[in-house]
Amino acid sequence: MGKLKVGVVGATGTSGAVAARIVLGHPDLTLAFATSDRAAGAGVATTLGVTPDPGLRFSAHDAVAGLVAGCDAVLLATSADVSAKLAPVFAGAGKQVVDLSGAFRLDAAATLKWYGIAHASAALLDGAHYGLPELFGAPPAGALVTNPGCYPTAALLALAPLVREGLVEPRGIVVDAKSGVTGAGRQSGDAYSFLEVDGDVRAYKVLAHQHTPEIARALGRLAAGGGAGAGSAVGVTFTAHLLPIARGLLATCYARPRPGATAARVAQCLADAYAGGPFVRAASVEDVMVKRVVGTNLALVGATADDDVVVATGAIDNLLKGAAGQAVQNLNLMNGWDQARGLTSLQRTAA
Amino acid sequence: MGKLKVGVVGATGTSGAVAARIVLGHPDLTLAFATSDRAAGAGVATTLGVTPDPGLRFSAHDAVAGLVAGCDAVLLATSADVSAKLAPVFAGAGKQVVDLSGAFRLDAAATLKWYGIAHASAALLDGAHYGLPELFGAPPAGALVTNPGCYPTAALLALAPLVREGLVEPRGIVVDAKSGVTGAGRQSGDAYSFLEVDGDVRAYKVLAHQHTPEIARALGRLAAGGGAGAGSAVGVTFTAHLLPIARGLLATCYARPRPGATAARVAQCLADAYAGGPFVRAASVEDVMVKRVVGTNLALVGATADDDVVVATGAIDNLLKGAAGQAVQNLNLMNGWDQARGLTSLQRTAA
Amino acid sequence: MGKLKVGVVGATGTSGAVAARIVLGHPDLTLAFATSDRAAGAGVATTLGVTPDPGLRFSAHDAVAGLVAGCDAVLLATSADVSAKLAPVFAGAGKQVVDLSGAFRLDAAATLKWYGIAHASAALLDGAHYGLPELFGAPPAGALVTNPGCYPTAALLALAPLVREGLVEPRGIVVDAKSGVTGAGRQSGDAYSFLEVDGDVRAYKVLAHQHTPEIARALGRLAAGGGAGAGSAVGVTFTAHLLPIARGLLATCYARPRPGATAARVAQCLADAYAGGPFVRAASVEDVMVKRVVGTNLALVGATADDDVVVATGAIDNLLKGAAGQAVQNLNLMNGWDQARGLTSLQRTAA
Amino acid sequence: MGKLKVGVVGATGTSGAVAARIVLGHPDLTLAFATSDRAAGAGVATTLGVTPDPGLRFSAHDAVAGLVAGCDAVLLATSADVSAKLAPVFAGAGKQVVDLSGAFRLDAAATLKWYGIAHASAALLDGAHYGLPELFGAPPAGALVTNPGCYPTAALLALAPLVREGLVEPRGIVVDAKSGVTGAGRQSGDAYSFLEVDGDVRAYKVLAHQHTPEIARALGRLAAGGGAGAGSAVGVTFTAHLLPIARGLLATCYARPRPGATAARVAQCLADAYAGGPFVRAASVEDVMVKRVVGTNLALVGATADDDVVVATGAIDNLLKGAAGQAVQNLNLMNGWDQARGLTSLQRTAA
Repeated sequence: MGKLKVGVVGATGTSGAVAARIVLGHPDLTLAFATSDRAAGAGVATTLGVTPDPGLRFSAHDAVAGLVAGCDAVLLATSADVSAKLAPVFAGAGKQVVDLSGAFRLDAAATLKWYGIAHASAALLDGAHYGLPELFGAPPAGALVTNPGCYPTAALLALAPLVREGLVEPRGIVVDAKSGVTGAGRQSGDAYSFLEVDGDVRAYKVLAHQHTPEIARALGRLAAGGGAGAGSAVGVTFTAHLLPIARGLLATCYARPRPGATAARVAQCLADAYAGGPFVRAASVEDVMVKRVVGTNLALVGATADDDVVVATGAIDNLLKGAAGQAVQNLNLMNGWDQARGLTSLQRTAA
Repeated sequence: MGKLKVGVVGATGTSGAVAARIVLGHPDLTLAFATSDRAAGAGVATTLGVTPDPGLRFSAHDAVAGLVAGCDAVLLATSADVSAKLAPVFAGAGKQVVDLSGAFRLDAAATLKWYGIAHASAALLDGAHYGLPELFGAPPAGALVTNPGCYPTAALLALAPLVREGLVEPRGIVVDAKSGVTGAGRQSGDAYSFLEVDGDVRAYKVLAHQHTPEIARALGRLAAGGGAGAGSAVGVTFTAHLLPIARGLLATCYARPRPGATAARVAQCLADAYAGGPFVRAASVEDVMVKRVVGTNLALVGATADDDVVVATGAIDNLLKGAAGQAVQNLNLMNGWDQARGLTSLQRTAA
Repeated sequence: MGKLKVGVVGATGTSGAVAARIVLGHPDLTLAFATSDRAAGAGVATTLGVTPDPGLRFSAHDAVAGLVAGCDAVLLATSADVSAKLAPVFAGAGKQVVDLSGAFRLDAAATLKWYGIAHASAALLDGAHYGLPELFGAPPAGALVTNPGCYPTAALLALAPLVREGLVEPRGIVVDAKSGVTGAGRQSGDAYSFLEVDGDVRAYKVLAHQHTPEIARALGRLAAGGGAGAGSAVGVTFTAHLLPIARGLLATCYARPRPGATAARVAQCLADAYAGGPFVRAASVEDVMVKRVVGTNLALVGATADDDVVVATGAIDNLLKGAAGQAVQNLNLMNGWDQARGLTSLQRTAA
Repeated sequence: MGKLKVGVVGATGTSGAVAARIVLGHPDLTLAFATSDRAAGAGVATTLGVTPDPGLRFSAHDAVAGLVAGCDAVLLATSADVSAKLAPVFAGAGKQVVDLSGAFRLDAAATLKWYGIAHASAALLDGAHYGLPELFGAPPAGALVTNPGCYPTAALLALAPLVREGLVEPRGIVVDAKSGVTGAGRQSGDAYSFLEVDGDVRAYKVLAHQHTPEIARALGRLAAGGGAGAGSAVGVTFTAHLLPIARGLLATCYARPRPGATAARVAQCLADAYAGGPFVRAASVEDVMVKRVVGTNLALVGATADDDVVVATGAIDNLLKGAAGQAVQNLNLMNGWDQARGLTSLQRTAA
């Protein structure tokens, strides 16, 4: 049996380039095509810095219709409006689809409000699986997988077990997140120049970030799931900050404790939730450092508490566990493979 | 009349070096002495990179007793335990004292708890003036000035007007702060090596930072002050994060709104509070960037709100408005001068 | 007698913004006008982060003709082609002119070759004074001052005394320079994004940088000046590198030793050359660090040697001694003032 | 047949940690042991951030004698004096040895002069193979492999083909190299603190770096090899600079051209030299960027020329092609495998 043929749309974007490299290094995948307008015609090996040379060149984005038939699965590393158009095409042709954009993460009304996208058909959106395997399991057969946002991945991994166990109040949660520049994709413009970003830190999209409803929706599903926290309405304030680092993000989360939420208990809750899995590791709240996960598909989470507050932290590489790594993790699960397949050779960047 | 003779204790520490440079450039001050153990005997001009050469060499810390008589005022840029010992000596000799450490910021019990310091005499501590001029005015004659901590300065400038006007609930406040490495002083050790800090972000002293009671105490005085927020008990959760920048800090503050706390109202509250003053400027919450204040004694503050939360941000250079600059601002006020004297020539570092 | 009224053209560029701040803090200068297309109409105080507010707004560049009469002197912090047009206008009106661009640094033929500029009149170019005071003295009365390039300033301060004294061969000199992003001005585009620059180092304009003939020309004048190195033809290879820092540059220079050029002798040569001056300091070759000069108008230079090579290093803040600081130093000299006037309050950025 | 059992000595140093991770991800290698004094007893998986957990703990360095028998090969990622003691032990037991230190790179006299090491037996040193495969081929059977220094690797890959072909004068070569902090290993001390390194660039060990004789020796062997450059004496000046980056180095090399060394010819010379190999790629001299190789075992090299000079640049990740990656490349060759085995899954760090 041959390898699964995977196409990557948007393969020179920050997430797409990482996705293409992972596909090239994966023992069960082969790179069927890679699209990029700015690198169309250029060799994949030189542009992405990979060896050996797969002998593939980037296709222009316009050519994508002609590429559908030649793949078994596609990773959409594009903007939400492009994904909204392409996902039905690939899904309609029976291909496995993992969408890394936000086009399929919210319900129809919220998608229109936050992304300005009106989906033509409700079925694909309604059937989409929110692909955070440690919290929502393997994708059901045939479902489009909507890969979680980078901030939601870190915040949910840190908060979800606490909400599910009823250790924190689900309302009044504050998520204060700090991310490197790739959290914003391959942005141009003065605001992302070295001159502006180096030495600076600033908040952006305050009270207006599209990841806010995504975090609230996912926590709401867990709170409603029949555990100790069942049935509670969720309220989340989320703020993103831009840091002078290239990759990685830290989410510092604050919630009001419910009875029993001692420091020891909340720490144990996280340790129990992720024991045995390959990618999420519980640590002390201060050992949850961005640098310890950058370059890998790992997440670090930690929590502590006093009488007034529970503080939980989560750190990931936004391009790996927060995007391309998690997408391949989902792809592995869709095909019945070990979820860590092709992801264990990724190496921590920190020396 | 001659210039005021100012000594700087700890003049090669991160704050002390900046303080010594400001004194040297101040039209009404002269540098009486500068102590430093690691640079004792070295020339101040070369070590601090100043011109013209003031012809002064660093004194060893042991020599400080012999230096008291030769100065009119002293800036103590030392650890809290050293300040606790030296402040009475200088104050007892009738010198003006601005202490940049935490030794005199809390009450006796809290100073013992958070700093491990038992003050020999209560009088100096009880009479200490908390030197945040924009909120607590000019120091009374003869009082020791306790210069605020860097994090409290940024958080209080952002939050205090909102608390004083009763626009936010004084309990359940979250202050999530991000600072460069000088926030921790001139630290040695692997944790502060370039290899560890570059590309990383991490929380530290979670639920255990000595600036937490300092913020709560100052807010409590303002809430008790007879304004709309009078009489309320204050509750603050504070978390500090270490960023890969040298100077500057951002405090992102979250509070529950009281009736009337619209986005426009909270923004206007800050604008009104600081209109006319030289050093605190109201801006939109996203324009409160560290880079716009580093190198200056300026603070930027901003606030916005929705139905669930008020978000207020404050940015300062931790070594200037958060330490040495504010210390000289206090010294100016103690001597009846324009509070901006000697501080307007400081230039923003960002290009 | 009132202050000298100085206009700054290009006052939100990286050098121009620094120049405007220095003018505002200078005891003998007042800011007559500041032009900027992207900030036209905005307040100077807020945009540049200065206090107190000088009550001035940026003028659009188109308005410059109407601003000539209202100033005594002008600093041109613009591109070479703009300076080539404006300098004659201000000079023709009898104003003092310091041009920070490369428009007047080379002879007519070289200016056409390297900058693509054909000057309308030869007189202004021929009479231009190369404003590196430590090597070429004070500007003669009435001369347009062409402010040296940033790389030439550092390289010449390190090399010139050695060439002048005949301690090195004037041919086969290699200058390998490393600069922060402001060495390239306020550049836009992906090449200057944080994502590209952070963590990277690269050479640019290899064998094609316009500062090469500028260094060679200035060394040639010194070699021809009647000292021990007189009459020698000069040959320089210059390479610039882009570093992930905002400000500052280091030039590492290699030359073949002439007899007598021992390590001690070359070090002493630099020490002697700059003794007594306010801004250039000799240090050991390894203490010539960028960080020790950034924020100041200081230059550090050092040299050592073995049998095969003389290595000399020079470090400056490219925006100060390499641009705006040196421009004001020249302005001071043009007006018969102490050359350090208004420049001593600049403070080292490093903590 | 089982996997080759490889031990790593010094497995939490900057190179050793990377080496251990590569061994863990290599299809034909298994990690027999990993020594580390500071992490002795800690789990390898958590400390190095790898998954799945190999179930191995770090051994104390003192235990190394007991570990010899359990391995087939060893990577010595230690200081030169430690390697000088351990290499004979492992080699004497018939194990394959790759030494990443400088203990075996020079002849006996130079090793004593530059490293202070007097080898007990000359045989091991005399038989050591200089492991730069692209220039010196596969190690002969049974030879200890001395892994090249990071700076020599980059400089030699850029210069060697030009020297070998006689396109440059072998005397008067200047190598100006710029490296991140890991070039100095896991250094402690103020000089490597974030506060000192960030925003700075400085030269170090000027005219006194132990990589100088290593570069000269290797070039001398190539110049003596019977090619066009045969028989020439080699003279190299080498300067290292410390940059505010974590990983990666760039060597900018200057040499005097011999007749025929046009820009096109020198570029073609490099392209021809490395065509077909997996790890060295020729590019334009300005495309030789550190960021394009960090995270991979790739080297980028480029060259250009004018009448006076040939400029050649080389960029590598100092921890991979400059240390651990090249060590495994040598190990592959020692065992008759494809030299890229286990190294192709390494991914470029840049987004």
